[in-house]
Amino acid sequence: MTDSYSPHIADLRSIKLDDPQSVVFLGDGEPQTAKSTIERLRALEADGRLEPDNYSLGGSVLALERRVADELGKEMAIWMPTGTLANHLALKRHAGIKSRVVLQEQSHIYQDEGDALSRLSGITAIPLGHGQPYFTLEELKSALLQSVTGRVLNPVGAISIESPVRRQAGQVLPLDQMRAITKLCNEEGIPTHLDGARIYMMSAATGIPVREYSSLFDSVYLSMYKYFGAPFGAVLAGPSEFIEGMFHDRRMFGSGLSSAYLIAGLSLNGIEGFADHYQNAFDKATSLFIELNRIPGLTVRAFENGSNIFELLIDHEISECHFTKTLLEAGIVLPLPDGNWPVPVIRVNTTILRQSNSDIVRAFAGAATVT
Amino acid sequence: MTDSYSPHIADLRSIKLDDPQSVVFLGDGEPQTAKSTIERLRALEADGRLEPDNYSLGGSVLALERRVADELGKEMAIWMPTGTLANHLALKRHAGIKSRVVLQEQSHIYQDEGDALSRLSGITAIPLGHGQPYFTLEELKSALLQSVTGRVLNPVGAISIESPVRRQAGQVLPLDQMRAITKLCNEEGIPTHLDGARIYMMSAATGIPVREYSSLFDSVYLSMYKYFGAPFGAVLAGPSEFIEGMFHDRRMFGSGLSSAYLIAGLSLNGIEGFADHYQNAFDKATSLFIELNRIPGLTVRAFENGSNIFELLIDHEISECHFTKTLLEAGIVLPLPDGNWPVPVIRVNTTILRQSNSDIVRAFAGAATVT
Amino acid sequence: MTDSYSPHIADLRSIKLDDPQSVVFLGDGEPQTAKSTIERLRALEADGRLEPDNYSLGGSVLALERRVADELGKEMAIWMPTGTLANHLALKRHAGIKSRVVLQEQSHIYQDEGDALSRLSGITAIPLGHGQPYFTLEELKSALLQSVTGRVLNPVGAISIESPVRRQAGQVLPLDQMRAITKLCNEEGIPTHLDGARIYMMSAATGIPVREYSSLFDSVYLSMYKYFGAPFGAVLAGPSEFIEGMFHDRRMFGSGLSSAYLIAGLSLNGIEGFADHYQNAFDKATSLFIELNRIPGLTVRAFENGSNIFELLIDHEISECHFTKTLLEAGIVLPLPDGNWPVPVIRVNTTILRQSNSDIVRAFAGAATVT
Amino acid sequence: MTDSYSPHIADLRSIKLDDPQSVVFLGDGEPQTAKSTIERLRALEADGRLEPDNYSLGGSVLALERRVADELGKEMAIWMPTGTLANHLALKRHAGIKSRVVLQEQSHIYQDEGDALSRLSGITAIPLGHGQPYFTLEELKSALLQSVTGRVLNPVGAISIESPVRRQAGQVLPLDQMRAITKLCNEEGIPTHLDGARIYMMSAATGIPVREYSSLFDSVYLSMYKYFGAPFGAVLAGPSEFIEGMFHDRRMFGSGLSSAYLIAGLSLNGIEGFADHYQNAFDKATSLFIELNRIPGLTVRAFENGSNIFELLIDHEISECHFTKTLLEAGIVLPLPDGNWPVPVIRVNTTILRQSNSDIVRAFAGAATVT
Repeated sequence: MTDSYSPHIADLRSIKLDDPQSVVFLGDGEPQTAKSTIERLRALEADGRLEPDNYSLGGSVLALERRVADELGKEMAIWMPTGTLANHLALKRHAGIKSRVVLQEQSHIYQDEGDALSRLSGITAIPLGHGQPYFTLEELKSALLQSVTGRVLNPVGAISIESPVRRQAGQVLPLDQMRAITKLCNEEGIPTHLDGARIYMMSAATGIPVREYSSLFDSVYLSMYKYFGAPFGAVLAGPSEFIEGMFHDRRMFGSGLSSAYLIAGLSLNGIEGFADHYQNAFDKATSLFIELNRIPGLTVRAFENGSNIFELLIDHEISECHFTKTLLEAGIVLPLPDGNWPVPVIRVNTTILRQSNSDIVRAFAGAATVT
Repeated sequence: MTDSYSPHIADLRSIKLDDPQSVVFLGDGEPQTAKSTIERLRALEADGRLEPDNYSLGGSVLALERRVADELGKEMAIWMPTGTLANHLALKRHAGIKSRVVLQEQSHIYQDEGDALSRLSGITAIPLGHGQPYFTLEELKSALLQSVTGRVLNPVGAISIESPVRRQAGQVLPLDQMRAITKLCNEEGIPTHLDGARIYMMSAATGIPVREYSSLFDSVYLSMYKYFGAPFGAVLAGPSEFIEGMFHDRRMFGSGLSSAYLIAGLSLNGIEGFADHYQNAFDKATSLFIELNRIPGLTVRAFENGSNIFELLIDHEISECHFTKTLLEAGIVLPLPDGNWPVPVIRVNTTILRQSNSDIVRAFAGAATVT
Repeated sequence: MTDSYSPHIADLRSIKLDDPQSVVFLGDGEPQTAKSTIERLRALEADGRLEPDNYSLGGSVLALERRVADELGKEMAIWMPTGTLANHLALKRHAGIKSRVVLQEQSHIYQDEGDALSRLSGITAIPLGHGQPYFTLEELKSALLQSVTGRVLNPVGAISIESPVRRQAGQVLPLDQMRAITKLCNEEGIPTHLDGARIYMMSAATGIPVREYSSLFDSVYLSMYKYFGAPFGAVLAGPSEFIEGMFHDRRMFGSGLSSAYLIAGLSLNGIEGFADHYQNAFDKATSLFIELNRIPGLTVRAFENGSNIFELLIDHEISECHFTKTLLEAGIVLPLPDGNWPVPVIRVNTTILRQSNSDIVRAFAGAATVT
Repeated sequence: MTDSYSPHIADLRSIKLDDPQSVVFLGDGEPQTAKSTIERLRALEADGRLEPDNYSLGGSVLALERRVADELGKEMAIWMPTGTLANHLALKRHAGIKSRVVLQEQSHIYQDEGDALSRLSGITAIPLGHGQPYFTLEELKSALLQSVTGRVLNPVGAISIESPVRRQAGQVLPLDQMRAITKLCNEEGIPTHLDGARIYMMSAATGIPVREYSSLFDSVYLSMYKYFGAPFGAVLAGPSEFIEGMFHDRRMFGSGLSSAYLIAGLSLNGIEGFADHYQNAFDKATSLFIELNRIPGLTVRAFENGSNIFELLIDHEISECHFTKTLLEAGIVLPLPDGNWPVPVIRVNTTILRQSNSDIVRAFAGAATVT
């Protein structure tokens, strides 16, 4: 599909992606470039906000960990270079000598972390909710029962919930469902983990505070690079006795990075004020989408239990090329058509605050004109 | 349900179970007692057929291994104390450095071996055919594709097929299905393993020779105690380079038993002439069931793709107590009602050869009389 | 060396090995044959002492477990097909989520169990006391310190002691050393395991009761086939909460044997009265060796901290062939020369009770005559 | 000891550490600060030398990998966030289905990587050369023999050599020893890995080219942050079929970092011209130390088979405080006394090029004056 674009459009798109005035309906955060990242580092350094760590212990890394723990209402937190490691170490620690973990079949852990649980830690992942954003309480009860009624006892050592679910268009678990699952787990003495990489997107969409979500779970992992502007990283938060000493495991897995403070400093900077800023963006998007839906030929459609991902339905009569180009010229970047056109999926992030809704609506209206 | 039996019936049942004249519709082999086992050992010893082994190497153990290899048309075989270990070591060896194994969700390996693959060997079992006797070729193709298209490559290292399927009333994979699956695996270079614990039951039911089944798979495991009259044991057969040296793994897992020759000797004795003997029993059962189905109130029903397990439907008007007692008195033992009455599940084994079909039919007819 | 024997001697040796009147200085127990084993089974069956189990649960297996627990003064016990598995599951259970186990470099676990701890359970064995029967308290303290001062914390989860040490001529840990080690472990909260396969040999040699040894350790494993006359097997004893549920792990490892009751019955039979019987044998050996040492050209030499293994030094002028043959004719079986002649290693077992010391001394004296 | 310094000295030391004119006898590379790192990033960005990667694939990461492969004369290379992971994945890949790895007891892998080999990959590390920089060929032969003569076969799957040895004052294996070991391994078909984190320090000290060392081994790991000026990172190089696909394992371990290009770009920049630059520094140090040794009261002592680490012996009559302060004022930074004074250990790095030898000698001579 990309081939159908003229070189001009491709070049223009590239320029607009980096333009600090563009509204970019891609990703959960603002696009990062080497230049912008280095510029932020310079400012942080000038302000004395970069304090060296010792192999990921102390300094700006510790400052970040404390900040995230506070943000999530947890006692303690630990920085990790990836969410894959944060999830793995959380479930490994929770499970202890038990060997089963229940999770969503559509979760990142089950689909995208290379069977690490079984390959490295001898843990069997029991996937529930095949092809669905989440599983039912009955599926969970059944899995718990099976684990202790087979010929060999294999009690479940932890439950992991991912919400929003990346592979399911960012759909979230309704709060009631989360409560029911975590309540059952509490009663059964099974620790619970939230893969809350994008917990802020969930919170902004549902209006339920981040801390209310995190309070339901024993541990929560939060991404540091999807929207906080760090190149990479994750933070795992939980009770002190859960987090303490986990840096040993981090090192054993090969992730005791030296001088992680530069990266942590960027994360810490990104987290400042993010929640409010993002809520503003999301609220603005809500108003915007109402207005966009008045434009003939365009429909912005929310997913059931959706977070910050929406479908943008475009009438067949509207020219794809014209539509895309006109919006680009107005500084509005959409995802490249990926064969699902005319239903691209768009994401709300804080770049939406860069232009007024009236300007954005005007641009869409112009682009949607049937030529 | 047992409570409804008078003590007299329970005692009678116990006596009849051990009576060498009884027809016992339980299990895949003939009931074993300490007395009968010791008597067989004595006879074997007197005939000079018990040759000591050295920690499961050599002697009668080797003789048994050679015999099973020959029976299955494989180059080599190795004795194991359990089928659980035979399956585990087969899949571990096949998988090598790969970490995924595809199997039936209803298989013994997935349900009853305690997640040993992941807990001890870091292998992820991918269960297919949920709640079914077997999976489709499409499910398999999809699993193979997923294993190499996720973010982390996890190519499948082995496929395991159980047939007959114990948890599915002994139903078997149709030969065409086995051929299609193993052909695809051969093309893809994926080793195949048959959990053929009850391969003789399958062969007798389908008329397809044991060797024809085993020729489709790289390795085959055969139970030694379900119908060969040994107290326990299993044999795994395959190519020489596959079996060679596997005794090291057997020992590492804690199964390098000393003096296994007594057990192996019993197995070797049980395997002698078994195939023909069992085929006679199965053919006799086929005729018998036709005749039983002429008795009013009784129906023997075969499963689709069934092996040696059948349903015995009994009319509601027939007295359970009278029916059971009358048959016991005639030396015919049925399973104890387990709450599924009036549909007990009966199994064909060689005890059916102990009485003539006309005697058995007469006994069932008398028992089925509505009093 | 064997070649130097005439066929006559080899045949004679074979006959004498099975002769119930022979004194056999080999092994820790009496030689077993198929015939003698079957005969014992017959007698047990006739006495109603063989009660079936269900996949190694209940029946004679349970009776044996209770008996061993009582013998060792522990709350509970579990039968295992091999000592390798008993040791592995004990250390795995003790270690829990910790990953280091300290043991003797010369121990069976470290040398002869195929790295099972690391390969199957991710446990790192830290070998101490290189080439020695046991390690010092200082070595242990140093290992404990190292485990918590490296860059990654790897606290020790269990200590294993083997005594007598098979690879060190059955030498034992002095009681004081055992006490010092287990006291330190108790203070540090580190569980202790005794590989006491031959604990009766140790007890008879030192005069310290079996229960006094076992009381020092959290768990103890005892061999069932080296001297109790079973073909194979082991029992692991310890606190109830330690043993309970371990049968699940046994099954997962592939050792949930069906019908283990025949084997357990033989063990239970062998354990009856063994301690006293063996003490008699050992005391008789002590007297005998004093007398043998008066024969010119012969010396029976004890090891430092030895148990039931002794060196028999034979003067060079004595003819090896004549010596061996003369003793065989008198019903006394020595180990085959293995290249270490004239210093064979002999073992004390209960066959020494089959002849009077005066007869044995007379035979040795005759054999030692320089011709 | 630090307490004995006046605040003035501590402050002065901190300033001098960051001063680009200081000669710093600490570490293998030049001291890095946030400021200097950011400045380097700015320059690289301005020159268009930072190209984004996709989760550590492509862009500047690929450029770095190619450069290191070339530097080491290997076909291919892969970036890792830590040497711990580089070593682990190298040995895991080499070992394949084998489960033993032989290494130095004093190596980083054995001492400082948390038993990761056994805990995560089921590999048993066999430590040789206790307390020594390296092991002998005889020790290796003995370990190879033991691995295939125990009751369970556990053939060695890889050999790892660390040189220089961090825990042994940077001592190196003599080339002859490396050749003998790797030749034996080649003959035995055992893959070899070099933990060459500081291979440039070894090469400069011995005059043997980096490529000559690396040619002896199947794989080589090189540190990226100890002297190339990156905050963290490592590169593993080897044959194409060895490196290909290893990024899957990297991700599974939780090290598939997004946007690693900034870090990789710094490494690539640091590697440019490093070998020559460092050789100059080392040669200059050699001359310098000859001159320093002429100063009364001072001795610079080389280790046997040493690399860039030397002992600086200082006469007792020289005042520690005066000595240190005088040198600091001249822009020469020594390690803080750590209780081993008056024998600090000093390291040669490229900061030695910042002042002329005559200036440095003058400073030392002045500092060594007995006051």
